[in-house]
Amino acid sequence: MTEGPGIPEIKAYLNGVDTPNMFGATTLFVKIIGSIAAVSASLDLGKEGPLVHIGACFASLLGQGGPDNYRLKWRWLRYFNNDRDRRDLITSGSSSGVCAAFRSPVGGVLFALEEVATWWRSALLWRTFFSTAVVVVILRAFIEYCKSGNCGLFGRGGLIMFDVSGVSVTYHPVDIIPIALIGIIGGLLGSLYNHVLHKVLRLYNLINEKGKLHKLLLALSVSLFTSIGMYGLPFLAKCKPCDPSIQGSCPGTGGTGNFKQFNCPNGYYNDLATLLLTTNDDAVRNIFSINTPGEFQVSSLIIYFVLYCILGLVTFGIAVPSGLFLPIILMGSAYGRLLAIAMGSYTKIDPGLYAVLGAASLMAGSMRMTVSLCVIFLELTNNLLLLPITMLVLLISKSVGDCFNLSIYEIILELKGLPFLDANPEPWMRNITVGELADVKPPVVTLRGIEKVGRIVEVLKNTTHNGFPVVDEGVVPPVGLPIGATELHGIVLRTHLLLVLKKKLFLHERRRTEEWEVREKFSWIDLAERWGKIEDVAVTKSEMEMYVDLHPLTNTTPYTVVESMSVAKAMVLFRQVGLRHMLIVPKYQAAGVSPVVGILTRQDLRAHNILSVFPHLVKSKSGKKH
Amino acid sequence: MTEGPGIPEIKAYLNGVDTPNMFGATTLFVKIIGSIAAVSASLDLGKEGPLVHIGACFASLLGQGGPDNYRLKWRWLRYFNNDRDRRDLITSGSSSGVCAAFRSPVGGVLFALEEVATWWRSALLWRTFFSTAVVVVILRAFIEYCKSGNCGLFGRGGLIMFDVSGVSVTYHPVDIIPIALIGIIGGLLGSLYNHVLHKVLRLYNLINEKGKLHKLLLALSVSLFTSIGMYGLPFLAKCKPCDPSIQGSCPGTGGTGNFKQFNCPNGYYNDLATLLLTTNDDAVRNIFSINTPGEFQVSSLIIYFVLYCILGLVTFGIAVPSGLFLPIILMGSAYGRLLAIAMGSYTKIDPGLYAVLGAASLMAGSMRMTVSLCVIFLELTNNLLLLPITMLVLLISKSVGDCFNLSIYEIILELKGLPFLDANPEPWMRNITVGELADVKPPVVTLRGIEKVGRIVEVLKNTTHNGFPVVDEGVVPPVGLPIGATELHGIVLRTHLLLVLKKKLFLHERRRTEEWEVREKFSWIDLAERWGKIEDVAVTKSEMEMYVDLHPLTNTTPYTVVESMSVAKAMVLFRQVGLRHMLIVPKYQAAGVSPVVGILTRQDLRAHNILSVFPHLVKSKSGKKH
Repeated sequence: MTEGPGIPEIKAYLNGVDTPNMFGATTLFVKIIGSIAAVSASLDLGKEGPLVHIGACFASLLGQGGPDNYRLKWRWLRYFNNDRDRRDLITSGSSSGVCAAFRSPVGGVLFALEEVATWWRSALLWRTFFSTAVVVVILRAFIEYCKSGNCGLFGRGGLIMFDVSGVSVTYHPVDIIPIALIGIIGGLLGSLYNHVLHKVLRLYNLINEKGKLHKLLLALSVSLFTSIGMYGLPFLAKCKPCDPSIQGSCPGTGGTGNFKQFNCPNGYYNDLATLLLTTNDDAVRNIFSINTPGEFQVSSLIIYFVLYCILGLVTFGIAVPSGLFLPIILMGSAYGRLLAIAMGSYTKIDPGLYAVLGAASLMAGSMRMTVSLCVIFLELTNNLLLLPITMLVLLISKSVGDCFNLSIYEIILELKGLPFLDANPEPWMRNITVGELADVKPPVVTLRGIEKVGRIVEVLKNTTHNGFPVVDEGVVPPVGLPIGATELHGIVLRTHLLLVLKKKLFLHERRRTEEWEVREKFSWIDLAERWGKIEDVAVTKSEMEMYVDLHPLTNTTPYTVVESMSVAKAMVLFRQVGLRHMLIVPKYQAAGVSPVVGILTRQDLRAHNILSVFPHLVKSKSGKKH
Repeated sequence: MTEGPGIPEIKAYLNGVDTPNMFGATTLFVKIIGSIAAVSASLDLGKEGPLVHIGACFASLLGQGGPDNYRLKWRWLRYFNNDRDRRDLITSGSSSGVCAAFRSPVGGVLFALEEVATWWRSALLWRTFFSTAVVVVILRAFIEYCKSGNCGLFGRGGLIMFDVSGVSVTYHPVDIIPIALIGIIGGLLGSLYNHVLHKVLRLYNLINEKGKLHKLLLALSVSLFTSIGMYGLPFLAKCKPCDPSIQGSCPGTGGTGNFKQFNCPNGYYNDLATLLLTTNDDAVRNIFSINTPGEFQVSSLIIYFVLYCILGLVTFGIAVPSGLFLPIILMGSAYGRLLAIAMGSYTKIDPGLYAVLGAASLMAGSMRMTVSLCVIFLELTNNLLLLPITMLVLLISKSVGDCFNLSIYEIILELKGLPFLDANPEPWMRNITVGELADVKPPVVTLRGIEKVGRIVEVLKNTTHNGFPVVDEGVVPPVGLPIGATELHGIVLRTHLLLVLKKKLFLHERRRTEEWEVREKFSWIDLAERWGKIEDVAVTKSEMEMYVDLHPLTNTTPYTVVESMSVAKAMVLFRQVGLRHMLIVPKYQAAGVSPVVGILTRQDLRAHNILSVFPHLVKSKSGKKH
């Protein structure tokens, strides 16, 4: 739960997947401590993913008024305790996380929009924007306060983390070739990274499942390997003489900064130590540094690149809160610098910019985002003139990467088995109707408008469904309709049935409840609460014979589809409107036909589940692909 | 059609409103010529609105293979000739327009996302991004080519139009007061502008309706007033001595540039002429200019502000292609500079930045956008450190403005009477069901699966509906159902009925068509075509007695709602999925019940139309507001 970046889980939650305990106080606490420890250990991971998750946890706890056991019972807080506001709060929380990690307010909003959120409303846009604005103002205040240096490394670089605005970008037609090259190679490397990481994660899953000791040993050995690599490898690099034109800062001996002296004599610096013996943020700053074309030797860059490729693959899956952004930026910047050296004097683009573009291309190749990455890089580097080039590189890498595999977050989602509903239905879903889907499921369990307590208990015990259609039989219909018609009254939720059973709102005879009774018995606070499990409910034998009027509890306006509807279109409806249940109504109209044919849930609409029942569709699926 | 910015119409089109001739070749031509003429005439209007419209026209024409009469008949172009791709292309076209106007690629994407588009998909995001990337690359190429000065004013300022990156922004807690003030006053002014502009536009509508001569005279008098004001007012300003610290450029005598000499002696400049006797772009550049705190006198700024307030109100409604961005930026910048002088030495924010923030606040106060404006201003001014302040100002102005009235585009939409569907249903829509709505409409006209030609002609002549439910009676249903059931087969479109009538695809007897016949008779190119009017169709008397099998033409998977569904939820479905028609099915199931109760269209779901039939809902509406 607390390992990994948490972004795929948030993405799944906002898609409608219930992921219990994802946003609790324990998760929050473990994430904060874990992330601080992991980053301090100089492991090859970033703090963005955990920060996004921390933001989402805060938002969720705020919305429900505190941790589960110590909730504040203020009335105005209850106002947010519904699915929709929870979803909005978590979206805002995620964008604040990205904003805090990269000091990138607009990038944070766009990240939430492009990668995390499934539904988007105009109002959400400016609310998210508001939350990132608050984050930036607070960040600014802290940075101002910490200027005197009394907060350690916090606030270094000000609001712009990796400033490369000092270089003025000029455009020449010949530059198109290196730019295209960066993009294509970045796309290839990114999809290769996704592919190999997938394999590693599957292996790690096997190890981690063996128990806590195995988890711990795995994390320890990766940490040991990282430390040995970081400290040992700089000894392989040759010392380089300082460039006399750079005064003062070379060689540096502090914990941060460029041109580290390490084991070299005065006047010399160790370029590999400059990259390895420092914080990850500082390493990026050094490798992005402009007007330092000859700072790094090819051999050092190759060692660095290979080391971070290995670390990037082995670190991510260990049981530690980890982000993916920074490892990919580190790999990508090294590859960019290497490409700059390979291109030699062909173009006049600064090697520091090559590193920026390399990082961007690898990100797009692996994560497949465009607009948000573009803005994040703009806000990280503060060079507006670089924007057109960044856009091209991102688009090329994304397109190249899309030819090979899914984005890294989608791969993780699939690996975790979260029932994520994709935006677009598969083409073969047009060839199957929801009626066919309902036919192969167990027959739908319906309840009557006024139902016996015994039947409700039985139904709740024997099924795991979360919603039950309510059908009235032999009703007296409006004028003009034959007597004995059946009526689709709506859908009642499991949790509301449990509420009735727990509160014992039973009737002695088969009758409708009056309106004043309804007002007295049900409050919307009760209806919003979760009511536990059927096993916790004790109903006596005499109560079993009593009745419950389900009418006031029934949602009388469920979304429906006719049985002849294709699964593809039903899925569009399901996802666009954000449903949990969808009723299937018959296309025939005659006496004796049930007014509800079936009920569809998220699981029924997942491609994988449909294919397991209708294997012949696989053929048409693979037929489409080739 | 060709006057105004065109953005509200594009917004309506992307919402699903059919606005004929909005994206034709004639419109494109008139917009281009008109916009060039209007901007050259120094009228107080911008080129962004028209450029957005021009982009949309190009996109639409490209999608359909050229103007209506001279279409290219290439097969691959036909591929785009469907509603969805047309919609996507027009969205990309609009964002390219904003990108071209402000040289702001990310801002263009966000503008399309926040203001223009109704539906948004992840794939659309990076496609729009791609189109703006292409625009920027081409712009860059032209700017590079025009550097030598052989393209007039084109390319001035490079990729960044109003660069204020030279000033370094520092943050102090005291700055919060002027920032909040800018935002609040900007919001007030913006909503006041919307209010007055609304009145002016209604007056202008009355004048413009009187005929072409009136239109022309109105435009001419506004143009005359503009010219007199621009040339005459600078004589009122006192000459100011040049600041000796600014060398060379003061006083200036060219067509562009700061510190215009005009009627002043050498060594002096006329500050009002600097603002008025220049292009609008250059005026903004001058008033945004940093490190020139004392350049403008209070009296000059007040004259300038008042003049542009009047011009901004009277110019927009004349029959000329006009954008709203620039007039508001001009007004806002003057107000910002004035506020800077009023604040005096209270803060150390540069007056040029005040002008930028004033412009941003007035924009947000009038247009109510946040993220896109923020990015557009970032890309216009290239000062990343200003970003947090801009965010705050935008959020404050938007919130203040929202207290008073709708955004300017929504006001124009309402004024034009375009049936725009809002994102959120009105609260009172929860109190009425679609069944009640269907009851007050004329009974739904259904067709049978195999229908007489005469009946089809009659139905098409007597109604204006665009879709008809197809119901089969007395079908032989699947095993288990009683004989004599009725079946809801689907919905058939008017245009497809016209196709059948025009192509005379009639049958001599009442029978189903075979599959090979269907393949032979209907091509998807025919189905995508528009088939004119029923009046153009000639059917002989003997043909009237023949039959048409509608089954192959029927969309068998229409979206449906049960009659007990609330209008609010039906509207969410209608808008989220992007429908034209929605069938209402009965909640009762019995012999003799029609399987379709009614059909809903966009017009049926508009708040205004519902209230005219159910006036009692107005009470609950106003009851909610108070």
